[in-house]
Amino acid sequence: MKKINKKVNAAIIIIGNEILSGRTQDVNVVSISNWLNELGVKLEEVRVIPDMENSIIRTINDVRKKFMYVFTTGGIGPTHDDITSRSVSKAFNLSYGYHKQAYEILEKYYGPENFNEGRKKMAMLPDKALLIFNPSSGAPGFIVDNVYCLPGVPSILKSMLGGLNNKIKGGKKILSKTISIHTVESEIAKSLEEVQDQFKNVEIGSYPFFRLGRIGVSIVIRSTEKKQINDCCKQIVSFLKKKEIHIIER
Amino acid sequence: MKKINKKVNAAIIIIGNEILSGRTQDVNVVSISNWLNELGVKLEEVRVIPDMENSIIRTINDVRKKFMYVFTTGGIGPTHDDITSRSVSKAFNLSYGYHKQAYEILEKYYGPENFNEGRKKMAMLPDKALLIFNPSSGAPGFIVDNVYCLPGVPSILKSMLGGLNNKIKGGKKILSKTISIHTVESEIAKSLEEVQDQFKNVEIGSYPFFRLGRIGVSIVIRSTEKKQINDCCKQIVSFLKKKEIHIIER
Repeated sequence: MKKINKKVNAAIIIIGNEILSGRTQDVNVVSISNWLNELGVKLEEVRVIPDMENSIIRTINDVRKKFMYVFTTGGIGPTHDDITSRSVSKAFNLSYGYHKQAYEILEKYYGPENFNEGRKKMAMLPDKALLIFNPSSGAPGFIVDNVYCLPGVPSILKSMLGGLNNKIKGGKKILSKTISIHTVESEIAKSLEEVQDQFKNVEIGSYPFFRLGRIGVSIVIRSTEKKQINDCCKQIVSFLKKKEIHIIER
Repeated sequence: MKKINKKVNAAIIIIGNEILSGRTQDVNVVSISNWLNELGVKLEEVRVIPDMENSIIRTINDVRKKFMYVFTTGGIGPTHDDITSRSVSKAFNLSYGYHKQAYEILEKYYGPENFNEGRKKMAMLPDKALLIFNPSSGAPGFIVDNVYCLPGVPSILKSMLGGLNNKIKGGKKILSKTISIHTVESEIAKSLEEVQDQFKNVEIGSYPFFRLGRIGVSIVIRSTEKKQINDCCKQIVSFLKKKEIHIIER
């Protein structure tokens, strides 16, 4: 199961019936991915799974061996369908119960008189979990080994990512450039492939778009090496010029 | 790997570096899931993976054994990063080459004089694949066994789903009701769990929201059984009344 490359990689597990049912549009992947790019961590897989203990345990145990960092979203609230903490405990064979520090944080946040059963449930975590500070709504996230458990509510999740920066040891920052043109993909496919063949450490993606009634393509060049990106861009711009294809922006 | 329940289920594999990099927000899961709900097919897993042959082959071969229907999105265009067709061929050990019917469709769509190399690539498919008609842009999707390969561009994907209705043998339609209230989750957590315990064939989800500056919760009740949903709703409405919690909409 060891990765052969030394790149720092990650996976996200989205725990949520509401995403699978089509009721809710996930937006957390974009937030986490952009944050990981800045830290030099490459997101290499996402799984969306139901709020079911078996599937959570199985997926966590599968994914945590394959990737350096695993982020879960969802299922850490107070209701019966919030079973992430319990499932993570089982995945790691850890006992599940009140976490002293989390209990204190939540009791202080709500006040002892309003600290009801539902809220207390959010203090039940795997034994010895490290907490992730939640500046928005009190209830902390938590870390067990390489698994980082975050809430599903997008605004709360976003507010917690910054506090994790010093816990993630990233690699080189992943850089990207985009060249947008007015053409169709098939016009540039061959030339683009020839450029890709020359730059093995650069990932070139081609994405058609429809904007203001016109068809176009965005060419996205990604790498950790700035010089490689620039050299690659030059070659692309050069073949676009020869083909007299108009560059909208770069 | 046999599923023990007889429910008709499905998984989606999103093939796309652009989703993993955070550049592009996926919206195809919502489209496919809502369409599957209508057909009585339950979406039970989504995986987002990179445009890499190994990972596509491995994921397809893993997922197709676990679910009745598998839908892939992305990677069937004309450029070098479009490798879904070739990878599916390898996953199924089928030869990969020009598909007569797809070739004819595309040649007619573009006209013989504009049918260039990039466009011809879109006619290269696994041997004996069944085609999925594309009313938007010519290039067909395709079916091999229980794997349905669709494009990544959301508008084109959506336009192709309707044509698949008669190819999917769904189960009972999945119904849902939503009760939205002004409260916090912890106030209703215990009562909601008690209702859930009584209705084993109903899936009750609880989702906090922030709307017009107020905090609220949407309770979503899902099942194939209309009566069960109604009975379940009644019990929820009854405990909300006792707690004097205002129902915004239902």
